[in-house]
Amino acid sequence: MINIAIDAMGGDFGEKPIIEGVIKALNVKPFNAILVGKSEVLKPLIPKNLEHLVQYEEAREVFSMEENATDALKRKDTSIYKAVELVKNGKVQAVVSAGHSGASMSLATLRLGRLQNVLRPAIATLMPNIAGTTLLLDVGANTDCKSENLFQFAVMGEVYAKEIMQIAKPRIALLSNGEEECKGNELTKETHQLMKKLPNFIGNAEGRDIFNANVDVLVCDGFSGNVILKSCEGVAGAIFKILKADIKTNLISKFGAILMKPSFMRLKKKIDWQEYGGAPLLGVKGCVIISHGKSDARAIQNAIFQALHFSEANINKAIENELSKF
Amino acid sequence: MINIAIDAMGGDFGEKPIIEGVIKALNVKPFNAILVGKSEVLKPLIPKNLEHLVQYEEAREVFSMEENATDALKRKDTSIYKAVELVKNGKVQAVVSAGHSGASMSLATLRLGRLQNVLRPAIATLMPNIAGTTLLLDVGANTDCKSENLFQFAVMGEVYAKEIMQIAKPRIALLSNGEEECKGNELTKETHQLMKKLPNFIGNAEGRDIFNANVDVLVCDGFSGNVILKSCEGVAGAIFKILKADIKTNLISKFGAILMKPSFMRLKKKIDWQEYGGAPLLGVKGCVIISHGKSDARAIQNAIFQALHFSEANINKAIENELSKF
Repeated sequence: MINIAIDAMGGDFGEKPIIEGVIKALNVKPFNAILVGKSEVLKPLIPKNLEHLVQYEEAREVFSMEENATDALKRKDTSIYKAVELVKNGKVQAVVSAGHSGASMSLATLRLGRLQNVLRPAIATLMPNIAGTTLLLDVGANTDCKSENLFQFAVMGEVYAKEIMQIAKPRIALLSNGEEECKGNELTKETHQLMKKLPNFIGNAEGRDIFNANVDVLVCDGFSGNVILKSCEGVAGAIFKILKADIKTNLISKFGAILMKPSFMRLKKKIDWQEYGGAPLLGVKGCVIISHGKSDARAIQNAIFQALHFSEANINKAIENELSKF
Repeated sequence: MINIAIDAMGGDFGEKPIIEGVIKALNVKPFNAILVGKSEVLKPLIPKNLEHLVQYEEAREVFSMEENATDALKRKDTSIYKAVELVKNGKVQAVVSAGHSGASMSLATLRLGRLQNVLRPAIATLMPNIAGTTLLLDVGANTDCKSENLFQFAVMGEVYAKEIMQIAKPRIALLSNGEEECKGNELTKETHQLMKKLPNFIGNAEGRDIFNANVDVLVCDGFSGNVILKSCEGVAGAIFKILKADIKTNLISKFGAILMKPSFMRLKKKIDWQEYGGAPLLGVKGCVIISHGKSDARAIQNAIFQALHFSEANINKAIENELSKF
């Protein structure tokens, strides 16, 4: 059975939703959960029938969201530090954390190390589109990139798409400000030439292609990826806010909205990041799933499933193999 | 009265919506419209009662969307070339074009020239937010920027916000991947320090801040701006597509949607770029409003109003004055 360490204390809402998520996941698919945090707080939350699948790793501190990621290495008694150490020591195959994402990333990179031939790890995230999902990477690990970095993100994204998204021939594209090869900034123009080496590279894609299901893997630098992620969250939020405010002013609309509620709920589920669990950090030795700080139990459950799939698929071996070809 | 040249042939849908937009605008606010294109095609479209406000400038060719912007300078008989020449020769104060935006931009920059002290012109666009609009610039004129460019975009955006958006103390922010000063890529970190010279600079902002009405002017490089613009269009489109498809499968939802139609229409109007006309090119001698290729009559009307306000406000003088202070 796969062992997964869960940073039980790092999320914005404390241990409750994290442990609920672990319980949900354990009820669907058995694995060994190693909960990292204060065992006296965590133990009472685990039901009797699941006790045999749960172990505890003591950590007395939490790395708070306000702290600077660079300090994570020094804070050796935090739940995220101890969780990453369990991967390093081979006691678990994967770690799931809804804590400080910068801390998770630097601990993973510095304590676990990079896979062979990987220059920079990348955070990948699944974005909902009209037909399924698009994998976008990097979304924040690297704000300044070279073309070699983006090329490697493409290779890592392709492996993930094949193994986890189960797409035999994933369409890989490079984010740019126009589809034509001549469009882009200096970085993307250089990267475009490198990416031609990949048989599944379909060329440049624009922001809108994330959502119209034309692309399976979209590659960009971490600055652009982060900007996209947050802008899109912002648009979706604003649309519903404007609509909600309008409905309040009109009784007929209000009644219409009540009738439409199931449709809205299904839409919400479809575009909700919590459905997709967390964001895997690709390129480090081990499996690190970075979850949103505001994750609810469902998001944690899905992040755990991601960690299970990731570990079962042996993605890291596949990434090293692919990169060795270039 | 202000003279405005309208590239009557450049849009995706030909002259019809452009001329309809001109007529709409003329009926609301008089100005001298100089229609640039084939006069024998355009003349029959103008109603008798408006004939005294309309003149024609002959242009036999259209610069097509497939052409390379760099060829625009050589294509001297295109409607966009001739329209820009009218500004250059002082025959009109402004030009509105829904044609090839790259061509408009290079013609404006090379034929009209830059304002004093302006290193690079920028395309600014109004993005709808939950309370009004946010000015985002640059959205495509400059894919690779230096910090001095972004600083100047901030100054130009501030002038536009004061004069056209009528905001006495516009909140100016720099797009980054986090609000903290330490967040960003090398370009934004350097720019952040320069922007501290501006009293209305409120710091870094994230993609979501465009929509939550926390920022009046958001500054970014043209690559990021373009990516944001297209991603946000993509999200909004996907949300409505998913919702529409879902409604079709459920009779009660369908009925609810009919009742909610007025709310949806008001939302659509609020988030529709056509409401905001076109994107002004800031930093060139003269006024150039770049409209979407798919502009309908309403979008053209609004772009003309923008051109009128721009010309009346004497923004270019204000930009030169502000920039001379640094």
